[in-house]
Amino acid sequence: MNRQLEFKRHTLAHLLAAAVLEKYPHAKLTLGPAIDTGFYYDIDFGDGEAPGDADLKQIQKLMKKLLNKWDGFTHEEVSVDKAREMFACNQFKLELIDEIEDKGEKITLYTCGGFTDLCRGGHSENPKAEINPDAFKLDKIAGAYWRGDEKNKMLTRIYGIAFNTKEELGEYETQIEEAKARDHRKLGKELDLFTFSELVGPGLPLFTPNGTLMRDLIVDKIMSIQLKFGYTKVVIPHITKSDLYKTSGHWEKFKDELFHVKGKTDAEFVMKPMNCPHHTQIFDSKLRSYKELPIRYAESTMVYRDEQAGELLGLGRVRSITQDDGHVFCTVEQIDQEVENIVKVIEKFYTALGMYEKNKFWVSLSVSNPAEPEKYLGDPENWVKAESMLENVATRLNLPYKRVEGEAAFYGPKLDFMFKDAIGREWQLATAQLDFVMPERFGLEYTDNTGKKERPVMIHRAIAGSLERFMSIIIEHFAGNFPLWLCPTQIAVIPVADTHNEYAMEIYQQLLEAGFRTEIDTSNESMGKKIRNAKKMRLPYFIVVGDKEKEDKTVTLESRDTMESKSYKVEELIEKLNPEADV
Amino acid sequence: MNRQLEFKRHTLAHLLAAAVLEKYPHAKLTLGPAIDTGFYYDIDFGDGEAPGDADLKQIQKLMKKLLNKWDGFTHEEVSVDKAREMFACNQFKLELIDEIEDKGEKITLYTCGGFTDLCRGGHSENPKAEINPDAFKLDKIAGAYWRGDEKNKMLTRIYGIAFNTKEELGEYETQIEEAKARDHRKLGKELDLFTFSELVGPGLPLFTPNGTLMRDLIVDKIMSIQLKFGYTKVVIPHITKSDLYKTSGHWEKFKDELFHVKGKTDAEFVMKPMNCPHHTQIFDSKLRSYKELPIRYAESTMVYRDEQAGELLGLGRVRSITQDDGHVFCTVEQIDQEVENIVKVIEKFYTALGMYEKNKFWVSLSVSNPAEPEKYLGDPENWVKAESMLENVATRLNLPYKRVEGEAAFYGPKLDFMFKDAIGREWQLATAQLDFVMPERFGLEYTDNTGKKERPVMIHRAIAGSLERFMSIIIEHFAGNFPLWLCPTQIAVIPVADTHNEYAMEIYQQLLEAGFRTEIDTSNESMGKKIRNAKKMRLPYFIVVGDKEKEDKTVTLESRDTMESKSYKVEELIEKLNPEADV
Repeated sequence: MNRQLEFKRHTLAHLLAAAVLEKYPHAKLTLGPAIDTGFYYDIDFGDGEAPGDADLKQIQKLMKKLLNKWDGFTHEEVSVDKAREMFACNQFKLELIDEIEDKGEKITLYTCGGFTDLCRGGHSENPKAEINPDAFKLDKIAGAYWRGDEKNKMLTRIYGIAFNTKEELGEYETQIEEAKARDHRKLGKELDLFTFSELVGPGLPLFTPNGTLMRDLIVDKIMSIQLKFGYTKVVIPHITKSDLYKTSGHWEKFKDELFHVKGKTDAEFVMKPMNCPHHTQIFDSKLRSYKELPIRYAESTMVYRDEQAGELLGLGRVRSITQDDGHVFCTVEQIDQEVENIVKVIEKFYTALGMYEKNKFWVSLSVSNPAEPEKYLGDPENWVKAESMLENVATRLNLPYKRVEGEAAFYGPKLDFMFKDAIGREWQLATAQLDFVMPERFGLEYTDNTGKKERPVMIHRAIAGSLERFMSIIIEHFAGNFPLWLCPTQIAVIPVADTHNEYAMEIYQQLLEAGFRTEIDTSNESMGKKIRNAKKMRLPYFIVVGDKEKEDKTVTLESRDTMESKSYKVEELIEKLNPEADV
Repeated sequence: MNRQLEFKRHTLAHLLAAAVLEKYPHAKLTLGPAIDTGFYYDIDFGDGEAPGDADLKQIQKLMKKLLNKWDGFTHEEVSVDKAREMFACNQFKLELIDEIEDKGEKITLYTCGGFTDLCRGGHSENPKAEINPDAFKLDKIAGAYWRGDEKNKMLTRIYGIAFNTKEELGEYETQIEEAKARDHRKLGKELDLFTFSELVGPGLPLFTPNGTLMRDLIVDKIMSIQLKFGYTKVVIPHITKSDLYKTSGHWEKFKDELFHVKGKTDAEFVMKPMNCPHHTQIFDSKLRSYKELPIRYAESTMVYRDEQAGELLGLGRVRSITQDDGHVFCTVEQIDQEVENIVKVIEKFYTALGMYEKNKFWVSLSVSNPAEPEKYLGDPENWVKAESMLENVATRLNLPYKRVEGEAAFYGPKLDFMFKDAIGREWQLATAQLDFVMPERFGLEYTDNTGKKERPVMIHRAIAGSLERFMSIIIEHFAGNFPLWLCPTQIAVIPVADTHNEYAMEIYQQLLEAGFRTEIDTSNESMGKKIRNAKKMRLPYFIVVGDKEKEDKTVTLESRDTMESKSYKVEELIEKLNPEADV
C-alpha cells in the first residue's frame, strides 16, 4: 500500500475513534490500525450502549463533520506516569503503556481536532485538505478478541474502507459486490460441489461427486501435462514421527502449529503440513546414481494445518489442504532445464483455463537480498548460479517477471506466478522454488560419473497450489461458468416431450461414447423447467430434441456462453466440441 | 481347526513344557495353548540358562522320547490353597490362580507321564497312540510379553508346528518355504514398489513410482468396472470431530483404538479408521428423493489404525491403510440388484487377476443366528428379506457359497469372498455388507413417491479391501510375476549393440504410442546383463533387436511366462498384446 494512503487510513482510524467517543462517551478505545482496504478500530463498550450496523451511517456522518476541523496533528512525548494517569480508566491502553515501557521505547500522544490518542505516528499532515470525504465509508461491525487471543475480552471492531478517490472506492465496492455474487460457498452449494458437516468439523470439506470430478479433472490435467516431462507419481502416509521434522528443521520452528497425533501405545505422530520431507525418504530409499537424475516425484495429497477456526472460509481457507505437490531432485546444472519444464507445465495448464494471458499474470523472480547474506543458507556460489538460471529461464521464455530482492526463501530463490481473476483480484498460484537446504539436512546423495558422492538440489513446485483454494478461486473467477473440459457435466440432452425420449437416448448414448460427460433429462418436468435446471447448473451446452430434430436426425445445440442456438448432425457436433473439450 | 487336532496340539504344548523342565529345571512355565498351525509355550528362564534356536532339536528329541510314556491324562480338581501351595514359586501361575478364583471357576490340574500342569483340559486321550512323532516339529524361539502386555516381563516363547500326518507337516513346511521365497517385503524391495523410513515410522509405507503405478492400476481397474454400475467418486478428509463417531456409535466401542489429533486451539479431532460415517454426511448434505436412489459413493482413501508396533508386517499389516471403499444408499427392494452389481464387479476384477476360478474361492453367506435374535439390530422383517435376497443373488449367480449362521455383523448380513492364493493360503478379500443401523443412527432419509420420509439401507462394499494388504497378497501370489495389465513396466526394448539403438528407439516409440508401459535399455551394459535386469524386474516381455531384426523390420519377443522367443512385426506384436493388457 502506498505510504500516503496508509497515512490517510490511519488518520481515519483516529477520526472514527473521535466520532465514537463523542456519541458513546463510555467507550474505551484500544487499537486502530490501517489495513489493506481501509482501517478499523477495536473498541470496548462494556455494559453500556454499543453501536449496531444501523448506527454506522450516523457515525460516518459525524466523522465527515469532524473532518472539517481536522487540519493538523500535534504530538508530544510524555512520561510513563503521565500516560498512566491520562489512561487510568482504560486497562487496554495501560497494557499497551506497560509494553512500551518494557521495550524501553518513547511514549507519544497524537492530537488532532481536540482528540488525543496514544500513538506511534504516521498520519496525514492536514487531514481536512488531504482526505476526500467521499472516498471513505464505514463498512461493518464485527467481534474481535483483544489482541486476537480468544482467552481475552471480546471487543467491537468497526471496519472502514478508504481510498484516495471516490472512483477508487466505487471500483472496490463494485468488486466486493461482484465477489459476493460469485461467492464460491454459494455457488459450491448450487452446483453441488462440496459440503461441510457439523459432525465432521469446520475447515474439513467433503467433496460430492461433482466436486470430486472437478478435483480429478484438475489433477489429471496437470498430471497429463507433466507426465511428458518425466514426473512419476508417489504416495505417502499423512502422518510421521516427529523425527522427520526434527531432521528437516521444521520441528523447532513449527511444532506448535502442527496437529499432534497420539495412539494408545508407543505411537506418537504428527500430521504432515507438507510433503517434501516424506519425498526425500523415497529418494533416499536406495543408492542413487547421476544417471537417474533428475528424479521427479508428483503427488496430489492432503496435508493438515491447524488454522484458527475464525479464519476458516469455505474452500478458501481449510484445515485439510490437498496439495498438487511435486519435487525434483537434480544437479545444479540441471536446474535451468527443470525450471523451464515447470514453467511450461504452468503455461499449458493456465492456458487451458484462459488465464495465461498478457496483463493477466506476472511472475515474481524472488531472489536474495545481497545486503543480508546471513539470511540465506547454502553455498553462495550455488545461489548466484541458481538465481541467474532462474532469470535466464524467465527471459528465455518471455515471462512478464519482476526481480524482487529479499523475497527469496531462506533455502533458495524462486519464481512465483501471480494471476488476476475476472474481477481484478490477484492470487499467487503456481510456484517453482529451489532448495539447497533440505538435501543437506537429510544427507541426500548421488554418485557422480567419477564415483564421487554429490548432493542434489531440490525443486519444490506447485501448479494449482492448494486444490481447495484453487477451486475457490476459479469458481469465483468463472462465476461457475467453467470451460468445457472442467465441467462435471458437459452436455444435457433435453427431449421436448415423452415421444422424443427414445431419439434423445440415442443422442445421449452417442455423446457418452464420444467421451462427453452427458446427462439426459427424461423427468416429467416441463421443458422450460428442464432448461432452467440446465442453466442453473451452468452447463456449457444443452441439446433440445423435438419433432423437427427427430425427423431431420439433427440436434439443436444451445450454448451457455454465446447464447446461440444452432442445428447440427450429431457427428458434426462431436467434431465441433472435441477441440474445446480437449484443450 | 479340527477338534482332535486341537487336542493333539494342546497335548504337545504340555509335552514341550515337560521336556523343557527336564533340561532346564529352573524354568517357570506360564501359558501354552494350541494355535492355528501347532502350539507354543511361554516360559520364564529368569537369569538361568535359556535355550537358543540351536537347542530346539534336542528339546524336540526329548519330547519324542517322553511321548513314548505318555499314554493317558489324569486330572483332579484342587482347592485354591492347594493350587497356591503347588505353584508357590511361580508368580505367573499364581496370577492365573487368582483370576480363576475371581471368576469363581474350578481349579483343575492335568497330569500325563508324570508331568502336571494347571490346565482347563482338552487333550488327546492317549497321546502315545494318537500323536504321530513325525508330524510335529519345534519351529522357532521368540520373545513375548507376559499376557501380551509390553509393560510386563519378556518371556521366551517356543513355537512348534503340528499336524495329523507327516505328509501334512511336509506340505505346510513347503508352503512356508514357498512363502519365504515370495515374501512381499523382499520382492517389494527388488521390484522397487515401496519403502519404509525410520524417520517416518513403522507401519507407514511410502510408495515409490512403481508401487504407486501398481496401486493406481488396481484402483483404476476397480473404478472402471464400477463406473458402469453408476458409482461416483467422492473425497473426504482424514480427520473428524469425535461427534461423528459419537453419532455412529463407534466412539463408545473404539475410542481407545483411534489415533487422537490435537491442535493448538479448539481443534480436537480423531483420524478416521473407516469412511462410512463421513459418506453418510455427503448423502445427508441435501434432501434426497427416491428418484435419486441408489446413490453409490466410491473412494480410495487412507484410514488410520493404531496397530501395535509388534504386529506390523511389511504391507500385510500397516497403520496407514488405503481402503478401496464404497457405500450404496438404497431402498430395501433395491438390495437385490445392488448386491448383484457388486458381485459382478468382484467377478470382473478377480477374473482379470485369474483368481475367480472354481475351487480357488468360496463365498461366506454370513447370516444371523436365529437362536440369538437379541444380537442383531434393525427391523427383523428387513433382516429376513435381506438374507433371502443375498441368498437369491448367490444362487442366481452360481456363487460357490456356504450359509454360515451367526456370522452376520450386528448391523446386517453379508457376503464375504475368500480366495486361495498360489500356495494354498486363504484370504478374505472382497465383501458386501448390508447395514440397517447406520442410516438409523444418522437419521438418513429420502422422500418416497408418496412424499413420505423413508430410511434408506446402506451397503458397505470392498473389492480389493485394504490396498496395502491386497498388494502384499498378490505380490506373494504371483511371486512378482504380475499379469501384463498390472505390471508397472510391461515391455523392455533391448538393443543388442549401440548400432541398434536407433531402430530400438523407433520400436520403443511405437509401443509407447500404442499405450504400453515400455522401457528402453540403451545403457553400456552387456546384452546378457540387460536381459538379466529385465528378468530380475519380472518384466512379462522383453524385446531384443539386433542386426536381423533391424534388417527384417521385426522384433524378437521373449516371454517371461512361456519362455518362448518369437519374431513379430511391431503391428502384429501390438495386436497380440492388446487383449492381454486390456483384460
